[in-house]
Amino acid sequence: QIPSTQSQPTPAIHLSNGPGPEPVTIITFEIARIRKTSSSFELRTWDPEGVILYGNRNSDNDWFMLGLRNGRAEIQMHNYRAQVTVSAGPQLNDGKWHQIVLKSHEDTLLLKVDGEEVLCLRQVFGPMTNKSETILNIALGGLLFPTSSLRLPLAPALDGCLRRGSWLDPQAQMSVSTHASLRSCAVESRPGIFF
Amino acid sequence: QIPSTQSQPTPAIHLSNGPGPEPVTIITFEIARIRKTSSSFELRTWDPEGVILYGNRNSDNDWFMLGLRNGRAEIQMHNYRAQVTVSAGPQLNDGKWHQIVLKSHEDTLLLKVDGEEVLCLRQVFGPMTNKSETILNIALGGLLFPTSSLRLPLAPALDGCLRRGSWLDPQAQMSVSTHASLRSCAVESRPGIFF
Ligand SMILES: [Ca+2]
Ligand SMILES: [Ca+2]
Ligand SMILES: [Ca+2]
Ligand SMILES: [Ca+2]
Repeated sequence: QIPSTQSQPTPAIHLSNGPGPEPVTIITFEIARIRKTSSSFELRTWDPEGVILYGNRNSDNDWFMLGLRNGRAEIQMHNYRAQVTVSAGPQLNDGKWHQIVLKSHEDTLLLKVDGEEVLCLRQVFGPMTNKSETILNIALGGLLFPTSSLRLPLAPALDGCLRRGSWLDPQAQMSVSTHASLRSCAVESRPGIFF
Repeated sequence: QIPSTQSQPTPAIHLSNGPGPEPVTIITFEIARIRKTSSSFELRTWDPEGVILYGNRNSDNDWFMLGLRNGRAEIQMHNYRAQVTVSAGPQLNDGKWHQIVLKSHEDTLLLKVDGEEVLCLRQVFGPMTNKSETILNIALGGLLFPTSSLRLPLAPALDGCLRRGSWLDPQAQMSVSTHASLRSCAVESRPGIFF
């Protein structure tokens, strides 16, 4: 890495605004306009457990959670076709930036970490049955329901930073609301300070 | 690796005895006597797709399959608590021996490849509801039902070799039957010869 007095650090958001499940950011999308069904971001943390993101479509019966448990990526999903609780890939809570990609295609969800495919969940999506599911929400750093509604609860606060987030299809985005953390991501993280 | 004129190669079995789903080996266990709920083995193959092992308990409603698809480990499971189709970990069809460990504990199944945890499926087992499930079968290199009964069919024949197999609890084992392959594992495998 070449130090430069002129480069600005890439903006990063802190994922924790308190010990509870309240997200730091909520982005809403119009489902009919979504043409790109992948998201990517970078995560840096020393924290072994917490929620990275949560998504739902109009209801509590069609939701998705990506988080960390024991330092590894964990996915929980619940919809009419599939209900899963699964973790995969290497431990990520080492204080280094890691790239994460989530891609859905037909009935499959793919998780890539640092360019490597680590998990492929097949037969987990079905055709949308309910025409009233017009809105998709993505919440960063928290949940849009109580922690006890998860398939397997975890302590939701994730003491970590997220940058270079690209969420589905920007032209399908309707709104962004923030409940930002008071914490800064500008300094290098240090182990030992986490919820 | 130190060449030795005195060492014998570790015995290995060939997993393919024809293009269909017939296993090369079937091992049966008395469930009540199983105290160790893990299995391990080494696999060597150039084949990207096929069944490594299949297990069931007394019925077609409680089954498990470990195989390869696109070179990676794939698990399919079906029981009253969970129905999953998931792949994880690195590509294994590189002609080198890889160690695979499957461990079940409470409601969780763990898959380790070459000493690394690659997949943890949680909430996939429940208490056994049917007291008549007394027998557990493990089939190597094939299935104990038609290929079309898988959640997601694959071409079942796996052109590969398996050695150092340790299957659950040996003192719970009741019988072993073989429909052995005519193929040999004694020579180094070469890419390009597979079903
Ligand atoms: Ca929060
Ligand atoms: Ca935490
Ligand atoms: Ca066979
Ligand atoms: Ca094959």
